[in-house]
Amino acid sequence: MNKSLADLKIVIVGLGLIGGSIARGLSNKKSNKESNQKLCREIVAVGRNEKILQQAFDDGIITGYATDVAQACVDADLVIIAVPSLTVEKVLQELKSAIAETTVVTDAASVKGAIIESVSRVYGEVPENFVPGHPIAGSENSGYSASLKDLYKGKKVILTPLDHTSQSAVSLVQMLWESLGSEVIKMSVADHDQVLAATSHLPHLLAYALVDTLSQQGQSEEIFRYAAGGFRDFTRIASSDPQMWHDIFMLNGDATIEVLDEYMTDLSRLRTAMQNRDSDELMTTFKRAKKSRDKFLEHFPRAEK
Amino acid sequence: MNKSLADLKIVIVGLGLIGGSIARGLSNKKSNKESNQKLCREIVAVGRNEKILQQAFDDGIITGYATDVAQACVDADLVIIAVPSLTVEKVLQELKSAIAETTVVTDAASVKGAIIESVSRVYGEVPENFVPGHPIAGSENSGYSASLKDLYKGKKVILTPLDHTSQSAVSLVQMLWESLGSEVIKMSVADHDQVLAATSHLPHLLAYALVDTLSQQGQSEEIFRYAAGGFRDFTRIASSDPQMWHDIFMLNGDATIEVLDEYMTDLSRLRTAMQNRDSDELMTTFKRAKKSRDKFLEHFPRAEK
Repeated sequence: MNKSLADLKIVIVGLGLIGGSIARGLSNKKSNKESNQKLCREIVAVGRNEKILQQAFDDGIITGYATDVAQACVDADLVIIAVPSLTVEKVLQELKSAIAETTVVTDAASVKGAIIESVSRVYGEVPENFVPGHPIAGSENSGYSASLKDLYKGKKVILTPLDHTSQSAVSLVQMLWESLGSEVIKMSVADHDQVLAATSHLPHLLAYALVDTLSQQGQSEEIFRYAAGGFRDFTRIASSDPQMWHDIFMLNGDATIEVLDEYMTDLSRLRTAMQNRDSDELMTTFKRAKKSRDKFLEHFPRAEK
Repeated sequence: MNKSLADLKIVIVGLGLIGGSIARGLSNKKSNKESNQKLCREIVAVGRNEKILQQAFDDGIITGYATDVAQACVDADLVIIAVPSLTVEKVLQELKSAIAETTVVTDAASVKGAIIESVSRVYGEVPENFVPGHPIAGSENSGYSASLKDLYKGKKVILTPLDHTSQSAVSLVQMLWESLGSEVIKMSVADHDQVLAATSHLPHLLAYALVDTLSQQGQSEEIFRYAAGGFRDFTRIASSDPQMWHDIFMLNGDATIEVLDEYMTDLSRLRTAMQNRDSDELMTTFKRAKKSRDKFLEHFPRAEK
């Protein structure tokens, strides 16, 4: 298989923030030949909401749509599953009889171990043309209306192919993401779920929990009124889609609990330091954390506000 | 005392982010008469670093400076103490013999109970012309170089006068902050320390702890490399000045521990929900938190990115 994207029929299942942004990127990006030329032959979206699908069609973002997975996937070269993690298995079942063995399937879910399990349940094994993937990009806003042409530009996409995954299938998915401006990185399923538990899943849990703790207090209206910019940024991710995050914690709970336990141990240590007015312990921790955080910014050159 | 700001000699002790921004606001704001007219007669800064003081003088931000508190405060009408919370008491001692009884003194520390205690220790009681204050504005950047003319514009400033605090002293401090574009709110010392523990001190502790937990892990370099925008915003406040936050947790540890304990109970509940794959508990919590956070934004109209 030495196809270029331009030859392909690509089907995107789920036209929310993630799928919508893929469609926008594929449809709008300028090619070398002329501006606004699609990057692939066909972009077909599958969704539940026909109004949104029609809007995307009218917007020129997609070349066709269906509410039925099997119908959309006839002759598909590449299927991208961009639905909440717990819905992926249902989509895989609908796909199974509809696509050819040569059709490459990838996903965009934030957990990879559980998706591999879903695929195994549906297919009995993980097909060589299934490429597990996860774009490290998002927003606290969700839905097609929040989708952005450049959401993936300059962002990392992690692929977690298995040993027997087809090299040409991986190359095709890599080409897709690179055409949207992403940097593609490969790692193991377990590493992915552990790293993401630490850098993404745990922070989201902490932010949801903080807003929830404060909102349960008697004077919560009063409390929120005096919150400032630090609080707003700290809790931004608590405005994220509850369904998406529910699914992630249902599926990556174990890895999240592992790093949460370390975190709670750290918090208890700081609690003791505050109780004992332990100046050294507090100062050492804050200095070390600031240094690490400032160093992290080197990996993430987007300017701070 | 019916003075207007224009008649006053104002001394700012500490020319960092907070004090520097006050000086910039006082010096640069356009008046009704002509542009760039100072809002007060004199703006004298006290600092340890003479280079920075000279720079501020050259910048036209201050009209004079000293490295000695007593020297700067001769004939001062209003003294603003803008140093890390644990340094306030030392400044108060230096001030004691240098200022007239009629000089109004205020501070900008993020804790109020401990400052009241410092004042009581130095003066034997809280003088009627001492007005405890706290601008709810800041940045993860610190120092004079990070100071901004408009840092306080549209921000809240909390004053926590005691029963016997002079009404005219409170009015003077209120006039100061309003001239910088702030909204002045009054509340009790205890309420301030509790509300700020919840909305500011706890989030800073959580952010420092998260970065610290992750930086202690074996593959921390790897972990930070895959962090994205949510992590960057969530941990922004962990780049804040360690000295300032050390002081705050040394002085408002009890109120912080109180809300931290509620938070850790909430985290444990979510841990159990993840462990038990308790779909309802997770979904209910995330939906409730998102609703609260979206409602909070109504109080904080600055546009989200």
